Amino acid sequence: MLGTGMVGRTIAARLEELGHEVRTGSRGSGDYAEAAEHGELVFNCTAGAGAVDAVTEAAAGLEGKVLVDVSNPLRFGGDGPPTLFTGIDDSLGEQVQRAVPGARVVKALNTVNADVMVHPEIVPGEHVLFVCGEDADAKAVVTELLGGFGWPAERVVDAGGISGARATEAYLLIWLKMMGWVGGAHFNIAVQREG
Amino acid sequence: MLGTGMVGRTIAARLEELGHEVRTGSRGSGDYAEAAEHGELVFNCTAGAGAVDAVTEAAAGLEGKVLVDVSNPLRFGGDGPPTLFTGIDDSLGEQVQRAVPGARVVKALNTVNADVMVHPEIVPGEHVLFVCGEDADAKAVVTELLGGFGWPAERVVDAGGISGARATEAYLLIWLKMMGWVGGAHFNIAVQREG
Repeated sequence: MLGTGMVGRTIAARLEELGHEVRTGSRGSGDYAEAAEHGELVFNCTAGAGAVDAVTEAAAGLEGKVLVDVSNPLRFGGDGPPTLFTGIDDSLGEQVQRAVPGARVVKALNTVNADVMVHPEIVPGEHVLFVCGEDADAKAVVTELLGGFGWPAERVVDAGGISGARATEAYLLIWLKMMGWVGGAHFNIAVQREG
Repeated sequence: MLGTGMVGRTIAARLEELGHEVRTGSRGSGDYAEAAEHGELVFNCTAGAGAVDAVTEAAAGLEGKVLVDVSNPLRFGGDGPPTLFTGIDDSLGEQVQRAVPGARVVKALNTVNADVMVHPEIVPGEHVLFVCGEDADAKAVVTELLGGFGWPAERVVDAGGISGARATEAYLLIWLKMMGWVGGAHFNIAVQREG
Protein backbone atom coordinates (compact mmCIF):
# COMPACT_ATOMS: atom_id res chain seq x y z
CA MET A 1 0.00 0.00 0.00
CA LEU A 2 1.45 3.32 -1.10
CA GLY A 3 -0.07 6.09 0.99
CA THR A 4 -1.22 6.36 4.58
CA GLY A 5 -4.07 8.83 4.20
CA MET A 6 -7.68 7.93 4.90
CA VAL A 7 -8.08 5.98 1.66
CA GLY A 8 -4.91 3.96 2.12
CA ARG A 9 -5.70 3.16 5.75
CA THR A 10 -9.29 2.18 4.95
CA ILE A 11 -8.32 -0.17 2.11
CA ALA A 12 -5.39 -1.63 4.10
CA ALA A 13 -7.67 -2.40 7.05
CA ARG A 14 -10.22 -4.07 4.79
CA LEU A 15 -7.52 -6.15 3.07
CA GLU A 16 -6.25 -7.36 6.44
CA GLU A 17 -9.79 -8.16 7.52
CA LEU A 18 -10.05 -10.31 4.37
CA GLY A 19 -6.90 -12.19 5.33
CA HIS A 20 -4.30 -10.42 3.21
CA GLU A 21 -0.97 -9.34 4.62
CA VAL A 22 -0.37 -5.63 3.99
CA ARG A 23 2.86 -3.62 3.99
CA THR A 24 2.31 0.14 3.93
CA GLY A 25 4.68 2.84 2.70
CA SER A 26 4.37 6.55 3.30
CA ARG A 27 6.03 9.67 1.99
CA GLY A 28 9.43 10.77 3.18
CA SER A 29 10.47 7.62 4.98
CA GLY A 30 11.76 5.96 1.83
CA ASP A 31 9.52 2.99 2.32
CA TYR A 32 7.37 3.25 -0.80
CA ALA A 33 10.00 1.07 -2.45
CA GLU A 34 9.92 -1.52 0.32
CA ALA A 35 6.12 -1.63 0.37
CA ALA A 36 6.01 -2.14 -3.41
CA GLU A 37 8.70 -4.81 -3.26
CA HIS A 38 6.67 -6.67 -0.64
CA GLY A 39 3.36 -6.70 -2.48
CA GLU A 40 1.97 -9.20 -4.93
CA LEU A 41 -0.47 -6.46 -5.83
CA VAL A 42 0.10 -2.77 -5.04
CA PHE A 43 -2.35 0.04 -4.36
CA ASN A 44 -1.48 3.67 -5.03
CA CYS A 45 -3.53 5.69 -2.55
CA THR A 46 -1.20 8.66 -2.30
CA ALA A 47 -2.50 12.20 -2.65
CA GLY A 48 -2.86 12.97 -6.35
CA ALA A 49 -0.08 15.57 -6.42
CA GLY A 50 2.40 13.04 -5.04
CA ALA A 51 1.33 10.00 -7.03
CA VAL A 52 3.88 10.11 -9.83
CA ASP A 53 6.77 10.68 -7.41
CA ALA A 54 5.58 7.83 -5.19
CA VAL A 55 5.31 5.24 -7.95
CA THR A 56 8.60 6.41 -9.48
CA GLU A 57 10.32 5.85 -6.14
CA ALA A 58 8.73 2.41 -5.97
CA ALA A 59 9.34 1.52 -9.64
CA ALA A 60 11.73 -1.42 -9.11
CA GLY A 61 9.24 -3.16 -6.86
CA LEU A 62 6.35 -2.61 -9.26
CA GLU A 63 7.82 -4.38 -12.28
CA GLY A 64 5.25 -6.80 -13.76
CA LYS A 65 2.79 -6.23 -10.91
CA VAL A 66 -0.80 -5.10 -10.87
CA LEU A 67 -0.88 -1.52 -9.59
CA VAL A 68 -4.34 -0.29 -8.59
CA ASP A 69 -4.32 3.47 -8.94
CA VAL A 70 -6.92 5.06 -6.67
CA SER A 71 -5.49 8.60 -6.71
CA ASN A 72 -7.25 11.64 -8.15
CA PRO A 73 -5.83 14.81 -9.74
CA LEU A 74 -8.19 17.16 -7.92
CA ARG A 75 -6.81 20.57 -7.05
CA PHE A 76 -8.78 22.80 -4.71
CA GLY A 77 -8.17 26.43 -3.94
CA GLY A 78 -7.44 29.38 -6.14
CA ASP A 79 -10.29 31.59 -7.24
CA GLY A 80 -12.31 29.14 -9.24
CA PRO A 81 -13.98 25.80 -8.61
CA PRO A 82 -11.94 22.61 -8.04
CA THR A 83 -10.03 21.53 -11.13
CA LEU A 84 -7.94 18.65 -12.49
CA PHE A 85 -4.23 19.41 -12.52
CA THR A 86 -3.73 17.01 -15.44
CA GLY A 87 -6.01 18.95 -17.78
CA ILE A 88 -8.63 17.04 -19.77
CA ASP A 89 -6.31 15.53 -22.40
CA ASP A 90 -4.35 13.52 -19.88
CA SER A 91 -5.06 11.79 -16.58
CA LEU A 92 -3.26 10.75 -13.46
CA GLY A 93 -3.85 7.11 -14.37
CA GLU A 94 -1.94 7.65 -17.60
CA GLN A 95 0.80 9.62 -15.84
CA VAL A 96 1.24 6.78 -13.36
CA GLN A 97 1.35 4.20 -16.17
CA ARG A 98 3.94 6.28 -18.04
CA ALA A 99 6.02 6.68 -14.87
CA VAL A 100 6.13 2.89 -14.31
CA PRO A 101 5.73 1.33 -17.77
CA GLY A 102 6.57 -2.11 -16.36
CA ALA A 103 3.58 -2.08 -14.00
CA ARG A 104 0.09 -3.18 -15.04
CA VAL A 105 -1.90 -0.15 -13.94
CA VAL A 106 -5.63 -0.46 -13.29
CA LYS A 107 -7.48 2.69 -12.36
CA ALA A 108 -10.24 1.79 -9.93
CA LEU A 109 -12.17 2.87 -6.82
CA ASN A 110 -11.40 6.57 -7.36
CA THR A 111 -15.06 7.43 -7.98
CA VAL A 112 -16.38 6.71 -4.48
CA ASN A 113 -15.69 7.65 -0.87
CA ALA A 114 -13.28 5.39 1.05
CA ASP A 115 -16.04 3.83 3.18
CA VAL A 116 -18.05 2.98 0.07
CA MET A 117 -14.95 1.51 -1.62
CA VAL A 118 -14.62 -1.27 0.91
CA HIS A 119 -18.24 -1.59 2.06
CA PRO A 120 -20.42 -0.91 -0.96
CA GLU A 121 -23.38 -2.39 0.88
CA ILE A 122 -23.72 0.80 2.94
CA VAL A 123 -25.25 2.33 -0.21
CA PRO A 124 -28.42 0.65 -1.52
CA GLY A 125 -29.11 -0.23 -5.13
CA GLU A 126 -27.15 -1.36 -8.14
CA HIS A 127 -24.52 1.35 -7.99
CA VAL A 128 -21.38 0.96 -10.06
CA LEU A 129 -17.61 1.22 -10.17
CA PHE A 130 -15.33 1.82 -13.15
CA VAL A 131 -12.07 0.09 -14.01
CA CYS A 132 -9.72 0.89 -16.85
CA GLY A 133 -6.25 -0.14 -17.91
CA GLU A 134 -4.26 -1.62 -20.77
CA ASP A 135 -4.02 -5.15 -19.37
CA ALA A 136 -7.21 -7.23 -19.47
CA ASP A 137 -5.82 -9.85 -17.08
CA ALA A 138 -4.93 -7.16 -14.57
CA LYS A 139 -8.46 -5.75 -14.80
CA ALA A 140 -9.83 -9.24 -14.16
CA VAL A 141 -7.60 -9.61 -11.07
CA VAL A 142 -8.80 -6.26 -9.76
CA THR A 143 -12.44 -7.06 -10.51
CA GLU A 144 -12.09 -10.24 -8.45
CA LEU A 145 -10.48 -8.31 -5.61
CA LEU A 146 -13.34 -5.80 -5.76
CA GLY A 147 -15.70 -8.76 -5.47
CA GLY A 148 -14.09 -9.48 -2.11
CA PHE A 149 -14.87 -5.94 -1.02
CA GLY A 150 -18.52 -6.51 -1.97
CA TRP A 151 -18.73 -5.30 -5.57
CA PRO A 152 -20.38 -7.88 -7.86
CA ALA A 153 -18.63 -8.11 -11.24
CA GLU A 154 -21.84 -7.03 -13.01
CA ARG A 155 -21.56 -3.66 -11.28
CA VAL A 156 -17.99 -3.06 -12.45
CA VAL A 157 -17.98 -1.05 -15.67
CA ASP A 158 -15.00 -1.61 -17.96
CA ALA A 159 -14.01 1.86 -19.14
CA GLY A 160 -11.44 0.58 -21.63
CA GLY A 161 -7.73 1.38 -21.72
CA ILE A 162 -5.92 3.57 -19.23
CA SER A 163 -7.02 6.71 -21.09
CA GLY A 164 -10.45 5.90 -19.63
CA ALA A 165 -9.03 7.49 -16.49
CA ARG A 166 -9.68 10.86 -18.17
CA ALA A 167 -13.38 10.07 -17.85
CA THR A 168 -13.34 8.53 -14.38
CA GLU A 169 -11.17 11.30 -12.94
CA ALA A 170 -13.14 14.14 -14.60
CA TYR A 171 -16.23 12.52 -13.04
CA LEU A 172 -14.97 13.78 -9.68
CA LEU A 173 -16.16 17.27 -10.59
CA ILE A 174 -19.77 16.14 -10.81
CA TRP A 175 -19.25 13.80 -7.86
CA LEU A 176 -18.53 16.93 -5.80
CA LYS A 177 -21.79 18.49 -7.00
CA MET A 178 -23.72 15.36 -6.05
CA MET A 179 -21.99 15.29 -2.67
CA GLY A 180 -23.22 18.83 -2.03
CA TRP A 181 -26.73 17.83 -3.07
CA VAL A 182 -26.77 14.65 -0.96
CA GLY A 183 -25.10 16.40 1.98
CA GLY A 184 -22.51 13.67 2.51
CA ALA A 185 -20.07 11.33 0.79
CA HIS A 186 -21.85 8.01 1.33
CA PHE A 187 -23.48 7.78 -2.08
CA ASN A 188 -22.82 6.47 -5.54
CA ILE A 189 -24.45 6.36 -8.95
CA ALA A 190 -26.56 3.58 -10.42
CA VAL A 191 -26.99 3.30 -14.17
CA GLN A 192 -30.71 3.15 -14.93
CA ARG A 193 -31.58 1.87 -18.36
CA GLU A 194 -34.69 1.65 -20.50
CA GLY A 195 -36.61 -1.45 -19.50
CA MET B 1 -35.01 27.28 -30.58
CA LEU B 2 -31.48 27.73 -31.85
CA GLY B 3 -30.43 24.61 -33.74
CA THR B 4 -32.23 22.13 -35.94
CA GLY B 5 -30.28 18.97 -35.12
CA MET B 6 -31.80 15.99 -33.39
CA VAL B 7 -31.79 17.64 -29.96
CA GLY B 8 -33.37 20.88 -31.19
CA ARG B 9 -36.05 19.06 -33.17
CA THR B 10 -36.86 16.72 -30.29
CA ILE B 11 -37.23 19.50 -27.74
CA ALA B 12 -39.18 21.71 -30.18
CA ALA B 13 -41.65 18.89 -30.90
CA ARG B 14 -42.16 18.27 -27.19
CA LEU B 15 -42.68 21.98 -26.48
CA GLU B 16 -45.33 22.15 -29.20
CA GLU B 17 -47.00 19.03 -27.83
CA LEU B 18 -47.16 20.84 -24.48
CA GLY B 19 -48.90 23.81 -26.10
CA HIS B 20 -45.98 26.19 -26.59
CA GLU B 21 -45.43 28.06 -29.83
CA VAL B 22 -41.90 27.45 -31.13
CA ARG B 23 -39.83 29.43 -33.63
CA THR B 24 -36.71 27.62 -34.81
CA GLY B 25 -33.53 29.13 -36.21
CA SER B 26 -30.75 27.30 -37.98
CA ARG B 27 -27.24 28.07 -39.11
CA GLY B 28 -26.57 30.01 -42.27
CA SER B 29 -30.03 31.34 -42.89
CA GLY B 30 -29.61 34.30 -40.57
CA ASP B 31 -32.64 33.31 -38.54
CA TYR B 32 -31.00 32.65 -35.17
CA ALA B 33 -31.66 36.32 -34.43
CA GLU B 34 -35.31 36.08 -35.45
CA ALA B 35 -35.88 32.90 -33.45
CA ALA B 36 -34.34 34.48 -30.34
CA GLU B 37 -36.35 37.67 -30.80
CA HIS B 38 -39.52 35.61 -30.95
CA GLY B 39 -38.97 33.57 -27.81
CA GLU B 40 -39.92 34.27 -24.23
CA LEU B 41 -37.42 31.57 -23.38
CA VAL B 42 -34.69 30.40 -25.74
CA PHE B 43 -32.95 27.02 -26.09
CA ASN B 44 -29.45 26.70 -27.49
CA CYS B 45 -29.30 23.26 -29.08
CA THR B 46 -26.66 24.04 -31.67
CA ALA B 47 -23.64 21.78 -32.13
CA GLY B 48 -21.07 22.66 -29.48
CA ALA B 49 -18.53 24.07 -31.91
CA GLY B 50 -21.10 26.56 -33.25
CA ALA B 51 -22.74 27.56 -29.97
CA VAL B 52 -20.86 30.78 -29.27
CA ASP B 53 -21.33 32.04 -32.84
CA ALA B 54 -25.04 31.19 -32.73
CA VAL B 55 -25.79 33.01 -29.50
CA THR B 56 -23.61 35.95 -30.54
CA GLU B 57 -25.64 36.29 -33.73
CA ALA B 58 -28.83 36.16 -31.66
CA ALA B 59 -27.57 38.44 -28.87
CA ALA B 60 -30.03 41.31 -29.35
CA GLY B 61 -32.99 38.95 -29.04
CA LEU B 62 -31.59 37.26 -25.92
CA GLU B 63 -31.33 40.35 -23.72
CA GLY B 64 -32.85 39.65 -20.30
CA LYS B 65 -34.19 36.26 -21.37
CA VAL B 66 -33.67 32.80 -19.97
CA LEU B 67 -31.33 30.91 -22.32
CA VAL B 68 -31.23 27.16 -21.74
CA ASP B 69 -27.87 25.94 -22.99
CA VAL B 70 -28.04 22.26 -23.95
CA SER B 71 -24.87 22.20 -26.07
CA ASN B 72 -21.77 20.16 -25.28
CA PRO B 73 -18.10 20.84 -26.10
CA LEU B 74 -17.35 17.26 -27.15
CA ARG B 75 -14.78 16.84 -29.90
CA PHE B 76 -14.37 13.42 -31.50
CA GLY B 77 -11.64 12.28 -33.83
CA GLY B 78 -7.92 12.70 -33.75
CA ASP B 79 -5.79 9.94 -32.30
CA GLY B 80 -7.05 9.97 -28.73
CA PRO B 81 -10.39 9.51 -27.00
CA PRO B 82 -13.13 12.17 -27.25
CA THR B 83 -12.19 15.39 -25.50
CA LEU B 84 -13.65 18.75 -24.44
CA PHE B 85 -12.57 21.61 -26.68
CA THR B 86 -12.98 24.08 -23.80
CA GLY B 87 -10.39 22.35 -21.59
CA ILE B 88 -11.26 21.64 -17.97
CA ASP B 89 -10.87 25.20 -16.61
CA ASP B 90 -13.66 26.59 -18.75
CA SER B 91 -16.95 25.31 -20.16
CA LEU B 92 -19.26 25.96 -23.04
CA GLY B 93 -21.90 27.17 -20.60
CA GLU B 94 -19.52 29.86 -19.39
CA GLN B 95 -18.47 30.74 -22.94
CA VAL B 96 -22.12 31.15 -23.92
CA GLN B 97 -22.80 33.31 -20.84
CA ARG B 98 -19.75 35.48 -21.62
CA ALA B 99 -20.85 35.83 -25.25
CA VAL B 100 -24.32 37.08 -24.22
CA PRO B 101 -23.86 38.69 -20.80
CA GLY B 102 -27.39 40.10 -20.91
CA ALA B 103 -28.96 36.63 -21.12
CA ARG B 104 -29.75 34.51 -18.06
CA VAL B 105 -28.01 31.29 -19.07
CA VAL B 106 -29.05 28.01 -17.46
CA LYS B 107 -27.09 24.92 -18.42
CA ALA B 108 -29.45 21.96 -18.46
CA LEU B 109 -30.41 18.71 -20.20
CA ASN B 110 -26.92 18.21 -21.68
CA THR B 111 -26.30 15.05 -19.61
CA VAL B 112 -28.92 12.82 -21.27
CA ASN B 113 -29.95 11.63 -24.72
CA ALA B 114 -32.59 13.72 -26.53
CA ASP B 115 -35.35 11.14 -26.06
CA VAL B 116 -34.65 10.98 -22.32
CA MET B 117 -34.62 14.80 -22.10
CA VAL B 118 -38.26 15.09 -23.08
CA HIS B 119 -39.57 11.70 -21.91
CA PRO B 120 -37.65 10.81 -18.75
CA GLU B 121 -40.24 8.12 -18.00
CA ILE B 122 -38.65 5.86 -20.63
CA VAL B 123 -35.88 5.26 -18.07
CA PRO B 124 -36.97 3.72 -14.75
CA GLY B 125 -35.90 4.89 -11.32
CA GLU B 126 -35.03 8.15 -9.64
CA HIS B 127 -32.52 9.33 -12.23
CA VAL B 128 -31.39 12.93 -12.16
CA LEU B 129 -30.67 16.05 -14.17
CA PHE B 130 -28.33 18.93 -13.36
CA VAL B 131 -28.96 22.65 -13.74
CA CYS B 132 -26.53 25.49 -13.16
CA GLY B 133 -26.42 29.20 -13.78
CA GLU B 134 -25.92 32.56 -12.10
CA ASP B 135 -29.60 33.49 -11.88
CA ALA B 136 -31.67 31.59 -9.29
CA ASP B 137 -34.98 32.77 -10.78
CA ALA B 138 -33.93 31.54 -14.20
CA LYS B 139 -33.03 28.16 -12.73
CA ALA B 140 -36.48 28.01 -11.12
CA VAL B 141 -38.15 28.79 -14.45
CA VAL B 142 -36.16 26.04 -16.14
CA THR B 143 -36.87 23.56 -13.34
CA GLU B 144 -40.58 24.21 -13.81
CA LEU B 145 -40.28 23.73 -17.56
CA LEU B 146 -38.42 20.46 -16.95
CA GLY B 147 -41.32 19.43 -14.74
CA GLY B 148 -43.53 19.73 -17.81
CA PHE B 149 -41.21 17.35 -19.64
CA GLY B 150 -41.63 14.86 -16.78
CA TRP B 151 -38.72 15.67 -14.44
CA PRO B 152 -39.88 16.13 -10.83
CA ALA B 153 -38.08 19.03 -9.10
CA GLU B 154 -36.63 16.62 -6.51
CA ARG B 155 -34.66 14.95 -9.30
CA VAL B 156 -33.13 18.20 -10.54
CA VAL B 157 -29.71 18.75 -8.93
CA ASP B 158 -28.65 22.38 -8.55
CA ALA B 159 -24.98 22.41 -9.56
CA GLY B 160 -24.46 26.04 -8.55
CA GLY B 161 -23.31 28.92 -10.76
CA ILE B 162 -22.57 28.65 -14.44
CA SER B 163 -19.07 27.31 -13.72
CA GLY B 164 -20.91 24.14 -12.68
CA ALA B 165 -21.08 23.51 -16.43
CA ARG B 166 -17.43 22.39 -16.16
CA ALA B 167 -18.68 19.45 -14.14
CA THR B 168 -21.82 18.66 -16.16
CA GLU B 169 -19.98 18.90 -19.48
CA ALA B 170 -16.95 16.86 -18.33
CA TYR B 171 -19.49 14.23 -17.23
CA LEU B 172 -20.06 13.50 -20.91
CA LEU B 173 -16.78 11.59 -20.99
CA ILE B 174 -18.03 9.05 -18.48
CA TRP B 175 -21.50 9.15 -20.05
CA LEU B 176 -19.87 7.81 -23.21
CA LYS B 177 -18.30 4.97 -21.21
CA MET B 178 -21.65 4.10 -19.66
CA MET B 179 -23.30 4.25 -23.09
CA GLY B 180 -20.80 1.66 -24.31
CA TRP B 181 -21.51 -0.51 -21.29
CA VAL B 182 -25.31 -0.22 -21.61
CA GLY B 183 -25.19 -0.62 -25.38
CA GLY B 184 -27.46 2.35 -26.05
CA ALA B 185 -28.23 5.94 -25.11
CA HIS B 186 -31.52 5.44 -23.27
CA PHE B 187 -30.10 5.48 -19.77
CA ASN B 188 -29.32 7.91 -16.99
CA ILE B 189 -27.79 7.93 -13.51
CA ALA B 190 -29.62 7.75 -10.20
CA VAL B 191 -27.91 9.00 -7.04
CA GLN B 192 -28.07 6.19 -4.46
CA ARG B 193 -27.43 7.31 -0.91
CA GLU B 194 -26.85 5.63 2.41
CA GLY B 195 -30.22 4.75 3.92
